[in-house]
Amino acid sequence: MLDITTQLTTNPKEKPAVDALGFGNYFTDHMFILDYTEGIGWHDGRIIPYQPISLDPSAMIFHYGQSVFEGLKAYVTVDNDILLFRPERNFARLNHSNDRLCIPKIDEEYALEALKQLVNVDREWVPNAPGTSLYIRPFIIATEEHLGVHPAKNYKFIIIMSPSGSYYKEGINPVKILVEQQFVRAVKGGTGEAKTGGNYASALKGQEIADREGYSQTLWLDGKENRYVEEVGSMNIFFKINGTVITPELNGSILPGITRDSMIQVLKSKNIPVEERRISIDEVVEAHHNGTLEEVFGTGTAAVISPVGELKYLEEKFTINKGEIGEVSQMLYDTLTGIQTGKVEDTFGWTIRL
Amino acid sequence: MLDITTQLTTNPKEKPAVDALGFGNYFTDHMFILDYTEGIGWHDGRIIPYQPISLDPSAMIFHYGQSVFEGLKAYVTVDNDILLFRPERNFARLNHSNDRLCIPKIDEEYALEALKQLVNVDREWVPNAPGTSLYIRPFIIATEEHLGVHPAKNYKFIIIMSPSGSYYKEGINPVKILVEQQFVRAVKGGTGEAKTGGNYASALKGQEIADREGYSQTLWLDGKENRYVEEVGSMNIFFKINGTVITPELNGSILPGITRDSMIQVLKSKNIPVEERRISIDEVVEAHHNGTLEEVFGTGTAAVISPVGELKYLEEKFTINKGEIGEVSQMLYDTLTGIQTGKVEDTFGWTIRL
Repeated sequence: MLDITTQLTTNPKEKPAVDALGFGNYFTDHMFILDYTEGIGWHDGRIIPYQPISLDPSAMIFHYGQSVFEGLKAYVTVDNDILLFRPERNFARLNHSNDRLCIPKIDEEYALEALKQLVNVDREWVPNAPGTSLYIRPFIIATEEHLGVHPAKNYKFIIIMSPSGSYYKEGINPVKILVEQQFVRAVKGGTGEAKTGGNYASALKGQEIADREGYSQTLWLDGKENRYVEEVGSMNIFFKINGTVITPELNGSILPGITRDSMIQVLKSKNIPVEERRISIDEVVEAHHNGTLEEVFGTGTAAVISPVGELKYLEEKFTINKGEIGEVSQMLYDTLTGIQTGKVEDTFGWTIRL
Repeated sequence: MLDITTQLTTNPKEKPAVDALGFGNYFTDHMFILDYTEGIGWHDGRIIPYQPISLDPSAMIFHYGQSVFEGLKAYVTVDNDILLFRPERNFARLNHSNDRLCIPKIDEEYALEALKQLVNVDREWVPNAPGTSLYIRPFIIATEEHLGVHPAKNYKFIIIMSPSGSYYKEGINPVKILVEQQFVRAVKGGTGEAKTGGNYASALKGQEIADREGYSQTLWLDGKENRYVEEVGSMNIFFKINGTVITPELNGSILPGITRDSMIQVLKSKNIPVEERRISIDEVVEAHHNGTLEEVFGTGTAAVISPVGELKYLEEKFTINKGEIGEVSQMLYDTLTGIQTGKVEDTFGWTIRL
């Protein structure tokens, strides 16, 4: 099981220009694949040249959505080392998602070793311009060739990597978000806390509505009462109200973000009050009306922090912090990206150096 | 657009023995593919030999679950004609699912024409033993090679076909179902009324629990109040209480089953009272306690009808109709399968003869 074979490409690709990167458009020269076969388990881990996957049209991933994924980033330091940010948390969460989707668990240590070897093989692909990174996408798909509805007997665990610029075209500028009224992303008892394709497919319609109204993200309320704040776009959300930073507690329908967890720890280390609890949209509206809604921001691997400059709920539009990034948002962004790129001392022990 | 090219296989497969068929295990010699490219639309419809699909590992279907599908059956009549059952309804529903998942709509007439041509090409694959049929699976997957979360710019619409025996190993024998308490299949505002992979992936966990307790299907309650009956397994559900047949009304989180709709029409034609309305699990329990719960059955394309012989809710187990198939269930099964196979006159105009 702990073997990983490596077959290097004989035909390396040309690397894209840094300013043409964007997000998720280009892929490195190699990928990692691990197969699962019922009765055998996970086997044949291998680093191979980046290449298409050939699947039977009856492969279950095309029909019943049994898939999970992760997202994390590697950065180059000024010393030309490569830093991974809390990758063990990604593989722990992948297994949590696996459990919800009835996918067999992976060996987390093995996956981390595979990731390190893959990054090393393609280390020249990690971009080093400010704001850029190597985005890493581990994912698992059901590959059994069968149309019955049941957990598949075969899977592929794959890691691909994409040199990426900033996620948001607007950069660190605050975005406008729309509170979604009609559609729901997730509900307690559903798959909201798992990182599975269906959650993202489900959210596209809300995003389409936001786009049409000129908003860049959707703010999702809970599926039961349509009242409590859950996520923004595909990020966790934080509100700074009267000096205290509040983020919705993990209730089963919210993704346990690794950036979210890191932000909470940074806030605590700076003695800034932070609460994980239910927060209703009414509380947010009231805080705005009485002048105590100081900052709003989303957190996620791709964006790190995305400040919210405007929020629309029903027919009312709120401008937050004059449409500018707030002090705490800026501090969190600087601290986290500083740790991730090796410019700020990692007192939390979050980074792995390659 | 209305062109369909046909490339016949030079290497036809051996047809499996009828008693080895099962469900969704074998596939015919040919498949239909139609591509979508942003700016061009759907194009290049073609019937080709059944073959693997090659996709980049960044293809969005592997990450964000943007997929929809349909299921329908073709039957051989005693005259060796082939009957399709309400196929236009499947393509209408596919477009409804497309809308929810932000997938561009297909031309329903064209899709039906493609389906007819494909079935004709593989007509020798339609099995003719009692209970067997050719299961047809149209599906659409997002193929754009990009890791950003947005509706894809490229798709494939594919039809594959599988000669199939009976869906349930138990045949027409009543099944035992377990009312799910912890997990939820869908919620209003989610994707429950669309036929998309994520709904099926989400439901696997409930099925796993049912399996473990010796039940063959999960009965799903609504996601908001955990009280109103929605579906059973991947079927719609009907209750006969005191002479009236009741099925949950289409509320946005229930799949609008074509078999469900057909059953309602058959019941009306036989002057059996039928109601589409909200029905709580408490009403079902009370009906059982006062002796008026006469029949329970699921409906779907694969099973047509699946009578429920036992239902477990919380710690209580109910035996329904002595664990036997009920009169109305049997009548509906005989009528629908009769129409589908050409043995009962199709007064509804549901079948298309090839």
